[in-house]
Amino acid sequence: MTEVSQRRRVTAVLFDRFELLDVFGPLELFGALSDHFEIGLVGPVAGPVRSSQGPSVFAETTYAEAEVPDVVLVPGGIGTRALVQDSSFRSWLAGWALQAEIVASVCTGSAVLASAGLLDGYRATSNKRAFGWAKEQGPHVDWVAKARWVEDRDRWTSSGVAAGMDMTLALIASMHSEELASALADRVELEWHRDPGWDPFAFVNGALGNR
Amino acid sequence: MTEVSQRRRVTAVLFDRFELLDVFGPLELFGALSDHFEIGLVGPVAGPVRSSQGPSVFAETTYAEAEVPDVVLVPGGIGTRALVQDSSFRSWLAGWALQAEIVASVCTGSAVLASAGLLDGYRATSNKRAFGWAKEQGPHVDWVAKARWVEDRDRWTSSGVAAGMDMTLALIASMHSEELASALADRVELEWHRDPGWDPFAFVNGALGNR
Repeated sequence: MTEVSQRRRVTAVLFDRFELLDVFGPLELFGALSDHFEIGLVGPVAGPVRSSQGPSVFAETTYAEAEVPDVVLVPGGIGTRALVQDSSFRSWLAGWALQAEIVASVCTGSAVLASAGLLDGYRATSNKRAFGWAKEQGPHVDWVAKARWVEDRDRWTSSGVAAGMDMTLALIASMHSEELASALADRVELEWHRDPGWDPFAFVNGALGNR
Repeated sequence: MTEVSQRRRVTAVLFDRFELLDVFGPLELFGALSDHFEIGLVGPVAGPVRSSQGPSVFAETTYAEAEVPDVVLVPGGIGTRALVQDSSFRSWLAGWALQAEIVASVCTGSAVLASAGLLDGYRATSNKRAFGWAKEQGPHVDWVAKARWVEDRDRWTSSGVAAGMDMTLALIASMHSEELASALADRVELEWHRDPGWDPFAFVNGALGNR
């Protein structure tokens, strides 16, 4: 793919009890490439939003006021359990994210996308420990149990937590170049798993076979 | 080491332009073990503190008011360049961190520890891309160029950014058990590099040999 000159906006969707690393693994990577990406955070309020682990992060804009970005990033976390029940959130997400170039998720963020209908007819993956629950949120999704991440057209979904960083590097490679993504992985001293089929955790965490 | 029943407090030191993943990689891991650890954030103000990548995170307490935790965590980031010149910050950190059970750093956070004299007489490592600069901050430190992380008594220092997660798992193994750390790595679907000597980035990023 050829290099594009325009910066893309990546916006992460915060909610009460989002998972820290699901957001900040990808944003570390996008944020390091400020020539190519600008990053933003939206939340239920403009102000502090609490993570699953406790620390609060500042959302700049409310959902209602958020501009549609080029890349939507939806994290997982224990807060997803309430979020998939929230019909006004789901309606907003469905309308907002549908206009983006790419919709991506980490961990149980794919269950949130599925609950909003954003993965219907797509291949997708999720956290391997909550895989059964994720599947229940999207009966019309082609769920892939063994995958570090799944790319299907304009939907990118990753497995649990740390898998989001491998997916993000692949997304950067797809939008820009493999060289840019590799240099970034070196810069942050991250061993990039480049094979989307690499997934020992599908077995360990019970999405496939016995625990 | 035997299991301890008391929860340890882990406090990350925020400052203007800290590196996101240096903080949230480790805090994701400590924060997932809420039976064993409680996490906190201190900053120059109680309120939002801006990261290198842009997003702001909420510090609960100012430096001056912060209780001494069991584990101090100092991240890197471009803000370290100003921080090592700030003598009032260095004095506070030296006095505060010296009372903790463990003082740990990620990336150029070790340069900050060194500038406060907290690594004098210790073995330590740092980010491999800024290794020369880190060394200048601690002439009395035994700097180790090739290491994912270095443990020397009550000081734990890791290499760049992503290395902080490997170090944190080793620290959890040391304080609790290898089994707990392994189960946690599986839970967040992170491939843990258990060998502190594993460090391809020492060569790639120029701390050893030619670039």
